Amino acid sequence: MEVIEPRDVIGDRILLTPGPLTTTKSVKEAMLKDIGSWDSDLVGLVRDIRQGLLEVAGLGEDYSCTLMQGSGTFSAESVVSSVIPPTGKALIIANGAYGERLVSMAEIHRIPHTVLRYAEDRIPVIENVERELARDSQISHVIVVHCETTTGILNPIHEIGLLAKRYSKSTIVDAMSSFGAYEIDMTASHIDHLISSANKCIEGVPGFGFTLSRREALLLAKDGARSISLNLYDQWQYFEKAGQFRYTPPTHVLLAFRQALSEFKAEGGIPARGRRYRENHRVLMQGMKKMGFRSFLDEEIQSYIITAFYYPESFSFQSFYDRLRRRGYIIYPGKLTHLDTFRIGTIGSIGKEQIEGLLEAIRSIQR
Amino acid sequence: MEVIEPRDVIGDRILLTPGPLTTTKSVKEAMLKDIGSWDSDLVGLVRDIRQGLLEVAGLGEDYSCTLMQGSGTFSAESVVSSVIPPTGKALIIANGAYGERLVSMAEIHRIPHTVLRYAEDRIPVIENVERELARDSQISHVIVVHCETTTGILNPIHEIGLLAKRYSKSTIVDAMSSFGAYEIDMTASHIDHLISSANKCIEGVPGFGFTLSRREALLLAKDGARSISLNLYDQWQYFEKAGQFRYTPPTHVLLAFRQALSEFKAEGGIPARGRRYRENHRVLMQGMKKMGFRSFLDEEIQSYIITAFYYPESFSFQSFYDRLRRRGYIIYPGKLTHLDTFRIGTIGSIGKEQIEGLLEAIRSIQR
Repeated sequence: MEVIEPRDVIGDRILLTPGPLTTTKSVKEAMLKDIGSWDSDLVGLVRDIRQGLLEVAGLGEDYSCTLMQGSGTFSAESVVSSVIPPTGKALIIANGAYGERLVSMAEIHRIPHTVLRYAEDRIPVIENVERELARDSQISHVIVVHCETTTGILNPIHEIGLLAKRYSKSTIVDAMSSFGAYEIDMTASHIDHLISSANKCIEGVPGFGFTLSRREALLLAKDGARSISLNLYDQWQYFEKAGQFRYTPPTHVLLAFRQALSEFKAEGGIPARGRRYRENHRVLMQGMKKMGFRSFLDEEIQSYIITAFYYPESFSFQSFYDRLRRRGYIIYPGKLTHLDTFRIGTIGSIGKEQIEGLLEAIRSIQR
Repeated sequence: MEVIEPRDVIGDRILLTPGPLTTTKSVKEAMLKDIGSWDSDLVGLVRDIRQGLLEVAGLGEDYSCTLMQGSGTFSAESVVSSVIPPTGKALIIANGAYGERLVSMAEIHRIPHTVLRYAEDRIPVIENVERELARDSQISHVIVVHCETTTGILNPIHEIGLLAKRYSKSTIVDAMSSFGAYEIDMTASHIDHLISSANKCIEGVPGFGFTLSRREALLLAKDGARSISLNLYDQWQYFEKAGQFRYTPPTHVLLAFRQALSEFKAEGGIPARGRRYRENHRVLMQGMKKMGFRSFLDEEIQSYIITAFYYPESFSFQSFYDRLRRRGYIIYPGKLTHLDTFRIGTIGSIGKEQIEGLLEAIRSIQR
């Protein structure tokens, strides 16, 4: 049996996951304060965050931001269940678990929909999307995940948005794990609603999600909601009119997020953050390859957010996980339907040093 | 114009609100840590919290606890939209804004329902409830708010639960702002589902709610959900089987809540916390009366959670609020339909000293 010399884990372990992820000390310290939900402190906080997110996305007056309590899934469901009218129909493009989750939302809300499915290692074929749009004039909305966290695959949202626009369809993008790490031009890509979450590439802590929407598309969602809590339009209107959340806001999580946004800006916005993550991913891939690990996706469709690796021969994920954990590193299990993989995230407040530390830990296990 | 000598507000202001409320430094400091959502740290945290809440409620094996991301309203909607089948019918007893919110949930989910409404200063009349139950055999569930935060009124949930049991109906109690401050015996009162939230009398920070349910009643909710995110049964099953949240958990808020639970226990549980809040309320009432403020409710139906006061003559709430704020105290606006009131909460990590400080601040304004 291997003799373990555990690295002294002081404070947090390094999270190499798709979020909750490693955040800075200052982001966490911003939570050491209680503020009232009706107070001007909260109104200012909400304003700073909504405005800050529009700035990150480079959006002007024609767009607005709606925060929603809960995980990112709650925000995604608030959009799917609020903006597609009973007379509409969704074309959902799915190549992973998060695409399928959007399908399950359409199902439970009895929203008419078609699913265009691809294997988990394949990006959608634009010609197929066009065929669906040409064939079925009932379709009103096209829904697609940007970075499908199941595998880390990056879907061609710009091409899909352009195509949808040509057919006068509205495009909804689940950019949960990519927003802040990849440039997305909602105007140029004709995206009406873009969904993400606090605990992803802005590097906040979990507790709410958000949607960036074209105002005109939001106005169409009036009376469209299928639940009270996840009513996107009412939530938005309350922000616009009262500057507050309709229901109790996660005040501490919001304080952390404002701090995260200011650190995001200080780092240099999307270009700088994308660069850091890309470098994290490059160092990881190089090291993993050297040790004989094979990644699941072809490199040209692989994001620098998260990477799925095949299990090597006679591999126990739990034992691998536990031994890395004892050395201070938290990795992530796989989520593929038919294949055994594990995943390593390269986002969060981590850099080359942490990735090299992880690689060294893996090497020490393999020895 | 008054010359303000602002009290030096170092750190947090004192929140005299129904939550988010003032929490201890140690509860907030528990959030200075990042943990993974799939990790054993999280599994242990979830177990401690679910078990801890059952202990607070004095419940055994026949009951279980389901945590739900979002504000308390999200938990309430997860129950209303999951446990009442299309063939069922809800009798909703309402005497304030939170009762009405439960009605709006039944409406949007097209759940058959009857509403028994009372004025905001009146508790439900048991004979009326019985008449409804006797008259309408379609009714399957009785829903009532325990402490209606609109006014602070305390509704007779024990009598309602007993009556519902006699007619073989299931009882759901929204105990958002009372759980932890008042003894509630779910077994004796025949309550099947009791809903509350992290940022109320356990004195955690906001970000999730929870439901305590009789297991048999939960099992009946299988396939009953009307949304993905707020699916009470699936959420519960995932806790039972994987020990984790289905979707990203608010990890930092959970860490704060575990700390809050342990401080709750150390203080002496519900009896001690109830005593402290009752004393807060007593000191508040005495001081306010002395200054000529009139409370909205008769004292015998008034809880020690939150109290509504009539506006005195020629009163500007905003100016009153701002001046108290500058002195370090945050109070709460009213929520009554037809009358001008403001509210003062007496829950949170505050005691006699803070209440007396508030009273002194009010006196200094009135001078």
